[in-house]
Amino acid sequence: MSETEKHKSRMQRKKAVVDAAIARADEIRGIVLVLTGNGKGKSSSAFGMVARALGHDQQVGVVQFIKGAFSTGEEAFFRRLPAVRYHVMGEGFTWETQDRERDVQAAQAAFATACELMRDPAINLVVLDELNIALKYRYLEIDALIAALQARPAHQNVVITGRGAPAELIELADTVTEMGDVKHAFRAGVAAQPGIEL
Amino acid sequence: MSETEKHKSRMQRKKAVVDAAIARADEIRGIVLVLTGNGKGKSSSAFGMVARALGHDQQVGVVQFIKGAFSTGEEAFFRRLPAVRYHVMGEGFTWETQDRERDVQAAQAAFATACELMRDPAINLVVLDELNIALKYRYLEIDALIAALQARPAHQNVVITGRGAPAELIELADTVTEMGDVKHAFRAGVAAQPGIEL
Repeated sequence: MSETEKHKSRMQRKKAVVDAAIARADEIRGIVLVLTGNGKGKSSSAFGMVARALGHDQQVGVVQFIKGAFSTGEEAFFRRLPAVRYHVMGEGFTWETQDRERDVQAAQAAFATACELMRDPAINLVVLDELNIALKYRYLEIDALIAALQARPAHQNVVITGRGAPAELIELADTVTEMGDVKHAFRAGVAAQPGIEL
Repeated sequence: MSETEKHKSRMQRKKAVVDAAIARADEIRGIVLVLTGNGKGKSSSAFGMVARALGHDQQVGVVQFIKGAFSTGEEAFFRRLPAVRYHVMGEGFTWETQDRERDVQAAQAAFATACELMRDPAINLVVLDELNIALKYRYLEIDALIAALQARPAHQNVVITGRGAPAELIELADTVTEMGDVKHAFRAGVAAQPGIEL
């Protein structure tokens, strides 16, 4: 068999495996996706899914739990779009505010907004950006989050980002990606780049 | 010290560490960011950075190397925007085409377009989506990619996605995230969801 024929035959076998897996995955419902780990790309991945949802003419809700102190490019971009309800509730990283009471209040206000979005069947995708940080510092109770996720409309997708996702959330989630930090330009002395980090 | 005071003091120490790291990271230049691994979120992260760049009124070029057979939400979304040059060059996953020669030709045409974008100083961000797959199957030579990356305008950011990034690319990259597949809804029988996977 020539190299070309071998390639074709290998790819035919692979296609059969892929097609069978697609045929098996026939359940249609919204998922809970958790993006965690220390590597770069968690929030940007969530915002890529916002773009993807908008490409399907879906309605999207975003709540930023912590990054309120940063004016990000995504915020500037998505705020222009009527199909996105964009809420920035956090007051900045917890080492910037240095005020636990204020952080707890901001996180709980953000969570109330998140719950409204998770009760609204018109919203196809809810992004809860940096929520894991709020859970980690115990600004919010994991049980309240789990109850809201379980009660949401069946077709609604929810994406939750941030380092240190708690075990209970990973257990409940349908898809979990752990973003490993192999290398980071920042540690090599390169400033955060607009359009990449900011 | 009360719990509130302890929190404040911990966060003051953390802020000092973060601020010192930001002060050290003073080099201003474009970076090469590689998003690899088997987990979900590589392409969506790259597309989130497209949104971020657009929020800063930057010009963006996108080349999709493999996913041409899929009509993705991102494509529908970003094609509407004049600041994005969007090229879909691939003819679908290699197990769909089953034709190595055609795949090689498609990958090389895509790479020629990528090189044009990487020579254009007006483009702030270049996304080479699923390029790693083309490298893995040896549809493209890694040396040609490295030469193009090294010759690009100094302020240009390049994001490269796909499983199995080669060691030479990881070596050259400024930032590398390995997306680990902790859990995937697809394996539990849930179909790919528009707005999340598609």
